[in-house]
Amino acid sequence: MGCDDPPYPQDGEGPPREVAVGPFALAATAVTNAEFAAFAAATGHTTDAERHGWSFVFGGFLPDDFPPTRAASAAPWWRQVHGADWRRPEGPGSGLDGRADHPVVHVSHTDALAYCAWAGARLPDEAEWEYAARGGLAGMPYPWGDRRDPGGEYRMNVWRGDFPHRNTAADGYRGTCPVDAFPANGHGLFNMTGNVWEWCADPFGPGGARLLRGGSHLCHASYCFRYRTSARIGNTPESSSGNTGFRCARPLAGTHIAPGSTDPLEPR
Amino acid sequence: MGCDDPPYPQDGEGPPREVAVGPFALAATAVTNAEFAAFAAATGHTTDAERHGWSFVFGGFLPDDFPPTRAASAAPWWRQVHGADWRRPEGPGSGLDGRADHPVVHVSHTDALAYCAWAGARLPDEAEWEYAARGGLAGMPYPWGDRRDPGGEYRMNVWRGDFPHRNTAADGYRGTCPVDAFPANGHGLFNMTGNVWEWCADPFGPGGARLLRGGSHLCHASYCFRYRTSARIGNTPESSSGNTGFRCARPLAGTHIAPGSTDPLEPR
Ligand SMILES: [Cu+2]
Ligand SMILES: [Cu+2]
Repeated sequence: MGCDDPPYPQDGEGPPREVAVGPFALAATAVTNAEFAAFAAATGHTTDAERHGWSFVFGGFLPDDFPPTRAASAAPWWRQVHGADWRRPEGPGSGLDGRADHPVVHVSHTDALAYCAWAGARLPDEAEWEYAARGGLAGMPYPWGDRRDPGGEYRMNVWRGDFPHRNTAADGYRGTCPVDAFPANGHGLFNMTGNVWEWCADPFGPGGARLLRGGSHLCHASYCFRYRTSARIGNTPESSSGNTGFRCARPLAGTHIAPGSTDPLEPR
Repeated sequence: MGCDDPPYPQDGEGPPREVAVGPFALAATAVTNAEFAAFAAATGHTTDAERHGWSFVFGGFLPDDFPPTRAASAAPWWRQVHGADWRRPEGPGSGLDGRADHPVVHVSHTDALAYCAWAGARLPDEAEWEYAARGGLAGMPYPWGDRRDPGGEYRMNVWRGDFPHRNTAADGYRGTCPVDAFPANGHGLFNMTGNVWEWCADPFGPGGARLLRGGSHLCHASYCFRYRTSARIGNTPESSSGNTGFRCARPLAGTHIAPGSTDPLEPR
């Protein structure tokens, strides 16, 4: 785990170190909108964004005539949008057309736990997530090696252009992308970096925040160079935003999958 | 204006350049809580934070048993606190005891304009603010010169320790400080950098955001190296937070101060 010279020492990425990880399974992709819809239909779960009546939406994705919004001064592109939730990712008037296979977003840590419990799964812990993201490679910043865009080919969905004002979508996507876009890593896992931040089980720092891993389609090195295998960030468990999702894990020890039954980690 | 090698190229700090500035006056300090209270009493003004019912509060200033909050993932220390406003800077149960001479905070750009109109003043534009902040020195990052803490002495109120988890308050202040703390700069102006961000008149980027200058008590070089004379940031005009205030300006041309009358830029 970890890396030499982490760009944000305060994140706690730490130096390279050995950590033991037990046997576990990790979903090949983040949970999709279609999967989350099945969960919501089956359980009637109300997300934190729905309960609070708002979520954080990237300002650049709002129409020019969108009503006034409020934002945090250190990250003014995050706008409080009333009525934004997983079904309406850019607020009232938006929807999931063409995004069934995109990662569900605007889900809190609490929502992710509820989904996992329903799916017979759990969130990965930090060491599991990082082991998985590395895809068998040691000491590499990206799941495929040491170059972000090897040979000029795009391998993940991050911000292309000048953040936050110019979004070229050179990697093919302005916002989220399908969970299985781009080649899988050496463990067969898709989009471990980029696309959406993924909630993990661990706390982040004192104060009750929870860990997120992997960076998102909004990361740009000039501002947030965190689309790397060892990068980390945290947020409060009730928080949600348009670039935050999750994927499911499960311990292997003691798990018995009955012949003919459906593996909860298989895509639904 | 500007500086060589700005640490955040995307902020638009730009290279050093000459800009003409007409005659103007700038308040020696940011508007205080006592001053804003007089304005609120005289006009009945409702701030954006009061109207929306919440504002952004730095999580580290909340009590340990504070109820769950929501935050933006890129800046999880900014918590949405219901009931936080200029009178209750850390939300319900907090107040202004001992802070009459501290800068008013949780005021939006809109609130600042309303105050200025009442006080017969206006917000400074960007060139005015920077000219004033430099205090007669050319090309210096700080209002007093080129060292942040010259001779080991603290000259402004910024984050001391490791942001956001360890706040040593080595400069004397954990949160805001009195508006006239620390020595004035060469133009007799206090706390042009540090303490609170100050709204300016100008837009910031496309999309209707407004400019802020000067950095705040929450700036730390590891995260936000913006307690400098040329640093800039923006936010939407309705936004507010516990580290954002303003100071008043006035053109000099054509202004006639009658003998014996009160200058609106004099401390009330
Ligand atoms: Cu990022
Ligand atoms: Cu700052």
